[in-house]
Amino acid sequence: MSNSLVISVDAMGGDDAPDMVVDGVKLARKRFPDVRFLLFGDEARIGPLVAGDSALSAVCTIRHTASAVSGDAKPSQAVRSGRQSSLWLSIEAVKKGEAAGVVSAGNTGAFMAMAKLILRTLPGIDRPAIATLLPTLRGESVVLDLGANAECNANNLVEFAIMGEVFARTVLSLDRPTVGIMNIGSESGKGTDTVRDASARLQDSALPIRFMGFVEGDDLGKGTVDVIVTDGFTGNVMLKTAEGTAKLYSQFLRNAFLSSLLARLGYLLSRSALQKVKARTDPRRYNGAMFLGLDGVAVKSHGGTDALGFSNALAVAIDLVRQGFNESIKDEIAKVQVLPSTVSVSHAV
Amino acid sequence: MSNSLVISVDAMGGDDAPDMVVDGVKLARKRFPDVRFLLFGDEARIGPLVAGDSALSAVCTIRHTASAVSGDAKPSQAVRSGRQSSLWLSIEAVKKGEAAGVVSAGNTGAFMAMAKLILRTLPGIDRPAIATLLPTLRGESVVLDLGANAECNANNLVEFAIMGEVFARTVLSLDRPTVGIMNIGSESGKGTDTVRDASARLQDSALPIRFMGFVEGDDLGKGTVDVIVTDGFTGNVMLKTAEGTAKLYSQFLRNAFLSSLLARLGYLLSRSALQKVKARTDPRRYNGAMFLGLDGVAVKSHGGTDALGFSNALAVAIDLVRQGFNESIKDEIAKVQVLPSTVSVSHAV
Repeated sequence: MSNSLVISVDAMGGDDAPDMVVDGVKLARKRFPDVRFLLFGDEARIGPLVAGDSALSAVCTIRHTASAVSGDAKPSQAVRSGRQSSLWLSIEAVKKGEAAGVVSAGNTGAFMAMAKLILRTLPGIDRPAIATLLPTLRGESVVLDLGANAECNANNLVEFAIMGEVFARTVLSLDRPTVGIMNIGSESGKGTDTVRDASARLQDSALPIRFMGFVEGDDLGKGTVDVIVTDGFTGNVMLKTAEGTAKLYSQFLRNAFLSSLLARLGYLLSRSALQKVKARTDPRRYNGAMFLGLDGVAVKSHGGTDALGFSNALAVAIDLVRQGFNESIKDEIAKVQVLPSTVSVSHAV
Repeated sequence: MSNSLVISVDAMGGDDAPDMVVDGVKLARKRFPDVRFLLFGDEARIGPLVAGDSALSAVCTIRHTASAVSGDAKPSQAVRSGRQSSLWLSIEAVKKGEAAGVVSAGNTGAFMAMAKLILRTLPGIDRPAIATLLPTLRGESVVLDLGANAECNANNLVEFAIMGEVFARTVLSLDRPTVGIMNIGSESGKGTDTVRDASARLQDSALPIRFMGFVEGDDLGKGTVDVIVTDGFTGNVMLKTAEGTAKLYSQFLRNAFLSSLLARLGYLLSRSALQKVKARTDPRRYNGAMFLGLDGVAVKSHGGTDALGFSNALAVAIDLVRQGFNESIKDEIAKVQVLPSTVSVSHAV
């Protein structure tokens, strides 16, 4: 057992923590029976939840923590006063080598700030980014940044492109994923100086990236490229707009199916087919956003998710660890830095 | 006939112009039999399209123009060399008082640049914005800016809030529409300096606006506020992401209904209910984005729309003219400028 993969879990993060978190670990245990979990949080609350399930107890170790970071705490404040929190200590377990990756459904800003301090950014990376997979007509695409950096310069976007490309190769098993930068038109003169500058650098660079130029908002659903690069403000609004539109559409559908007896009958007949659509667009399926650019695997779950969603975030962390993602991305970034035309050189021009 | 409302139309703008445009005018004529249309474009191409329909001929006047602005022309280039184009002359007809409003499905950037030069911005408005209505769970909301200004400062966002509020009162017939600023979280510390600054100004100002603070991407679908204010980069990406997600969802549904005989039968039974959903989310229904902040009614149609979509853009222009929108917005902006705490004063602080 001592050689098995260990995932560190902030058991106090998320709207329905710790119950939702422990239930998520329960589900993950069934999918990954040889993984162990290190749960950080209030032992008085977590203990009873774990104790009732002997299979769960066998793969969980509880580490009592006296405090938790609240959902509305400012990152700077959390970093100052939260050194004994479940969030801080669960990240520290990765740094100490006790765990191979950490998952939290808690305060995103605090998680990122603490992870930067504890795990450190990778050499050559200025700013970490948050990346996730989203469903498209062609399958799935990687989108980053989803909100770690509200304002970005061209160099940040180029770094996101490099990291996103490695992420897509790892999680989507693609040989040469395509990369695009989000803009308000596909012509080269469109948009802000930042996106035009980033695009020019990727176009001119010797980076081994299949850069396809600019993409637009509807290219997310179309799956035009495998990796969509954008600043954290736009990415966050995009992600939530897509989620909100899917909900709107499914609510309109629900109303339509309830609008007549015939429609209700139609729903019953097509129900199993429709449930596949629901499953494919279920936000819980895409739960688990990776912090890219840190020296360690750190995965953020939605705060409002349920046990199934949390178990998917755990699965993302487990997959990334198993596929040696952290080592791959370090290698790739090191390669980029010895290329004749590197990011840093372009940056200086 | 000489006293009837006249709409000026750029007959050469749009992917399938002039055929699509003339067909759109045909549909609009049936809905608005007392409106006249001034069509600018290549008479040799438009003439035959109109001539075959005597009811259409009776309400259309063709003005021959020798050139048209191409879809990929840069705005600056179009402004320099396009003074005899259908786009320029159709806008000029509004300035000259020959028409009460103009509609084009052509090059957005060129349309905005020419409209600014010809119609001028309203006193007190720094930058015009593009606004449209989008479907929500509660009905419809106004979103602006959709791409006129890729980069905005806090003052621009405050102006958009004022203009969007008047627009919502006019087109949605609301007494006191609610207004929110798009951000990546609802807490006051979230996001960029620009959105925080704009929010603080709207919160502190004596403006008669029901400002609700920050909203997030999923608030668009929820219809949390009546007016969503954002910069043109974010707004454009949001709009296209929402459209792309709706298409993705409807494609998933189509596949589901085709996946089994039972599902096909279910579709047939619920078909008429489902077609209502399709109609409600049909982008053609929401075609017609208003240029706000200009001294005149100018409405942009999607370039790729069809006759039905174009007729809806014409309907937007006709409604705005009939409701005296241009006069209302001038009055409102004048009122704002005599308020004790005005936009300009806040700006100076």
